[in-house]
Amino acid sequence: MTLSVREHVADDSRSDILFVAAECFMERGYNATSIDDVARRLGATKGRIYHYFPSKADLFAGVFRFGMDRIFAAVEPYRNMPGPAAERWKKLAFIHTVRMMKSKTLAKVVWEGVEMHLRGATTPQQRIELDGLIRYRNGYSDIFRETIAQAREEGDFHFADLGITVQAMFMALNSPMFWYVPRPGETDEDIHNIANQIVAFAHRGLGGKEET
Amino acid sequence: MTLSVREHVADDSRSDILFVAAECFMERGYNATSIDDVARRLGATKGRIYHYFPSKADLFAGVFRFGMDRIFAAVEPYRNMPGPAAERWKKLAFIHTVRMMKSKTLAKVVWEGVEMHLRGATTPQQRIELDGLIRYRNGYSDIFRETIAQAREEGDFHFADLGITVQAMFMALNSPMFWYVPRPGETDEDIHNIANQIVAFAHRGLGGKEET
Repeated sequence: MTLSVREHVADDSRSDILFVAAECFMERGYNATSIDDVARRLGATKGRIYHYFPSKADLFAGVFRFGMDRIFAAVEPYRNMPGPAAERWKKLAFIHTVRMMKSKTLAKVVWEGVEMHLRGATTPQQRIELDGLIRYRNGYSDIFRETIAQAREEGDFHFADLGITVQAMFMALNSPMFWYVPRPGETDEDIHNIANQIVAFAHRGLGGKEET
Repeated sequence: MTLSVREHVADDSRSDILFVAAECFMERGYNATSIDDVARRLGATKGRIYHYFPSKADLFAGVFRFGMDRIFAAVEPYRNMPGPAAERWKKLAFIHTVRMMKSKTLAKVVWEGVEMHLRGATTPQQRIELDGLIRYRNGYSDIFRETIAQAREEGDFHFADLGITVQAMFMALNSPMFWYVPRPGETDEDIHNIANQIVAFAHRGLGGKEET
């Protein structure tokens, strides 16, 4: 399906808002961010934002969903990669970790959404919306969980409890979201080197055989 | 040194405030928490809190420092444990991970403080205070960093970049802070089992030899 020019423009405008909103939410947190802040940074009227997002909660949900859409799209080509599950995991983990650096802003908004959900720090209506987003995100985690379980069945990974190990693995892969700061002149190769170190840590953690 | 009854009471009162304040900060975040909230939950007057902490920023700093004091005290007996550094790391990592569950509230406040520091979401004066607290926390991280570096020199751990690996390791050990919820009737043994799984993941991640 080809989008008309009008739809293209509309779509760009919407994603501009989402990127700028993600920056505001990341820097100040959900509570301290207002639609005014987002409009100011965007150099637009509040009306332009309200056209797409009737409330701050909707805008936050939009950023969360956008972040998940993008990371789902990034791993999609490898979800059903044939061959050993341990090899598939390596591809998925690498892509995930690179996203934590290159799309750190979106990743942190998703993170804050999960924290808000755990804290229950939302109204009942926001809670329903957030429940749906959390289910969407759990579907993403399940891709990794199933791949790891399969790799263990295939004898490539060795660990005891699946649930605890998946949590530890995700936190290791997510870690750059909390400390990575792009340096001037940094190349994709630099980013890939960092990601490879983290994936190697998690790969060993899962009981995978050391690369030779 | 024996404390007088009066000092005991004063000290208890201060730590009661810190525990309750930690709960409030954890549940609602720094911005959304007021001294009023803390006083209400404590069943005390605001005056009692102001007696110890002149402002919300001071109260937050107090909780941060209290959390760090406690975790420093917990690892202190093992900091200079003789023998291989890899064995020392295992002790330190186990204690750290158990604290992430048993003192989850304090751990999350420290975490929020670090995030606030990274975001720069503070006034210049708060920033000076927070800088000091972050240095205090970095001193704690350094215990692990030095132990891991030594274990690598001793040939027990195998990994490439020290800085990246320390980050991935800490996030794995910290992970229960984000997902652990105590279950009714849970024993210390249950908590130790969870901690052991996480320490095993990180131990393998550091390139440590599998237990036999």
